[in-house]
Amino acid sequence: MTGEVRVAREGALAWVTLSHPGKLNAMSRAMWRELRQVFTALPQDAGLRGVVLRGEGGHFCAGGDISEYPSFRFAPESLREFHEDEVWAGLQAVLDCDVPVVAQIEGACMGAGVEISACCDIRIAGESSRFGAPIAKLGFPMAPREAALVAAAVGNATAREMLLEAAVFDAAEMKLRGFLNRLRPDAAVAAEAEATAHRIAALAPQAARMNKQTFRALATAAAVPPDAYAYASSAEHREGITAFLHKRKPAFTS
Amino acid sequence: MTGEVRVAREGALAWVTLSHPGKLNAMSRAMWRELRQVFTALPQDAGLRGVVLRGEGGHFCAGGDISEYPSFRFAPESLREFHEDEVWAGLQAVLDCDVPVVAQIEGACMGAGVEISACCDIRIAGESSRFGAPIAKLGFPMAPREAALVAAAVGNATAREMLLEAAVFDAAEMKLRGFLNRLRPDAAVAAEAEATAHRIAALAPQAARMNKQTFRALATAAAVPPDAYAYASSAEHREGITAFLHKRKPAFTS
Amino acid sequence: MTGEVRVAREGALAWVTLSHPGKLNAMSRAMWRELRQVFTALPQDAGLRGVVLRGEGGHFCAGGDISEYPSFRFAPESLREFHEDEVWAGLQAVLDCDVPVVAQIEGACMGAGVEISACCDIRIAGESSRFGAPIAKLGFPMAPREAALVAAAVGNATAREMLLEAAVFDAAEMKLRGFLNRLRPDAAVAAEAEATAHRIAALAPQAARMNKQTFRALATAAAVPPDAYAYASSAEHREGITAFLHKRKPAFTS
Repeated sequence: MTGEVRVAREGALAWVTLSHPGKLNAMSRAMWRELRQVFTALPQDAGLRGVVLRGEGGHFCAGGDISEYPSFRFAPESLREFHEDEVWAGLQAVLDCDVPVVAQIEGACMGAGVEISACCDIRIAGESSRFGAPIAKLGFPMAPREAALVAAAVGNATAREMLLEAAVFDAAEMKLRGFLNRLRPDAAVAAEAEATAHRIAALAPQAARMNKQTFRALATAAAVPPDAYAYASSAEHREGITAFLHKRKPAFTS
Repeated sequence: MTGEVRVAREGALAWVTLSHPGKLNAMSRAMWRELRQVFTALPQDAGLRGVVLRGEGGHFCAGGDISEYPSFRFAPESLREFHEDEVWAGLQAVLDCDVPVVAQIEGACMGAGVEISACCDIRIAGESSRFGAPIAKLGFPMAPREAALVAAAVGNATAREMLLEAAVFDAAEMKLRGFLNRLRPDAAVAAEAEATAHRIAALAPQAARMNKQTFRALATAAAVPPDAYAYASSAEHREGITAFLHKRKPAFTS
Repeated sequence: MTGEVRVAREGALAWVTLSHPGKLNAMSRAMWRELRQVFTALPQDAGLRGVVLRGEGGHFCAGGDISEYPSFRFAPESLREFHEDEVWAGLQAVLDCDVPVVAQIEGACMGAGVEISACCDIRIAGESSRFGAPIAKLGFPMAPREAALVAAAVGNATAREMLLEAAVFDAAEMKLRGFLNRLRPDAAVAAEAEATAHRIAALAPQAARMNKQTFRALATAAAVPPDAYAYASSAEHREGITAFLHKRKPAFTS
């Protein structure tokens, strides 16, 4: 039993669930590969408008599955392969998803949990959730691209505190530090994540995909697509403005 | 009646006022062009030491003038011309102003309002002001350079929440998230903005212009001017240090 | 008497103390040179695991030693030499230190104090400490690289407020704005800084150095070292993971 990443579709939304029972959903190598597969497939689905990413059983993700580490971490080649080909490929697939992704964060959000939630667009957390990356206790540094991702999301000062002091933060502090968009009582996190995904799904889907492409270009200093204004004559664009001017609710059916 | 951008000089200060009565100062195409003209002219004035940018009638700016949109938004060429030649040219003129600009933010600060205030140096807001860019309800994304500007000013997490979820924030939340420098009761915002501009005007004006050039270079990754130390022998520099050492107030007359 | 920068070793820790009695530890030219020398020497010491940087007598550092300014500030060549060869060389040495540096901030933290603490990894401050860079009162701008450093650490909005309005902030506000990691009552700051350094010293030292190299590469957009995974077979890495799996405390003896 090495855990799994499950996906379920319902209407315009998809639920992706990290599941590793008994290990607070710690990411195994198999789960990193499944995360990539799931998120690579999602954006192909034109009817999809929102994704909720969550963990099973009251926790988001407690980190990596350390029981697997002795089998590959102590040789540079297999260690590089793990971080670059499995972990980063999984994270990149979440980052590359053109559909908005809401992180529903409950309980432990540590190490890999921070990295995965850092790839999401909107982070909603329960009041008792906890955040950190205390891998200095395990004798190793964060891989460079993962550190860049985390530092951009939690801020430089917090990233240093997490990695150099092995500090762990509660949800209120992570809200204050700008990582979390919203806090809710633990029992209300799932409902708020779902409501958020429904709010997103009611908005213009092409605009969401274009905004995500722009944000991705900003994060990577890549060139913005040259066709930034090709959407001008789209049905969605006409519908939104026309509905507003006629004082009616827009219908964004793609 | 398509609104206007007015400018008034008084001593070392200039007041720039967005005015579009009945539309909460929503920016028309004419207003974007006027914004550029006003801010392109301001820094030429050597005696100018501070600018207050505000909206008329208790609101900063509610966004764009949507009634004009059907006339140009549905064709890529005219849409690009609007965003690049009118909107961005107006915003760039505010960014290029070497004199410190204080945003006096009351009431609605939405869409174009967020963009314009993001170009200011210091943002002072009333407690009931509100912030967002819910254009996903109108069926279109934020133009890439405008999104980069907004994300840099409000932070990446907030920018995604504004654009992907159409979230609207109150002033206390925007202070917490680092966009606002200072909150005041609504009735006290104008007085605080004026007091701030006067405080700025009493400080060394050449130093302010050089600091703004440095900040602009940082924001655009442009090279810092090679003459970063040419100010050494200036009267202003001598006056500031000499006054301090003689325990008297400096007189920065340019 | 032009002040001094002292260093003391004790076990795995070093204490670096800014000392300029009667001037709230204002940095003289001699002190900038000593800061560089001290921090250039520290990382050579393989047994060193943590550094506490502090000021003597209840203050961190009140800025530069203005009494020296007339002797070199009014000519571009000597002004450039001061900022680039003395100030920046001192700051760069702190930034280049591969061992985690904790700033113990009490009382005044102004100008040079903000710059020096911005080079530290973790900032712990007393509740009555105060922060700013009101050099616009002295008639000069912040040097470009120093402004870039400060803006990255305090945020763009705060940097503009400090430099353009000569604003001064209390510790609670600087915690809220993300510059400070932790506040403590004034009398408890030294103990918390020491406890933090001891916590850091108990963690994996090679991992700390590698994390600091990664953060430095991120800050300067430099290439990450190509040997990011060469640590795989190190004793420290094996010890951390093995200890965890055997449910014992790791012993990171380098």
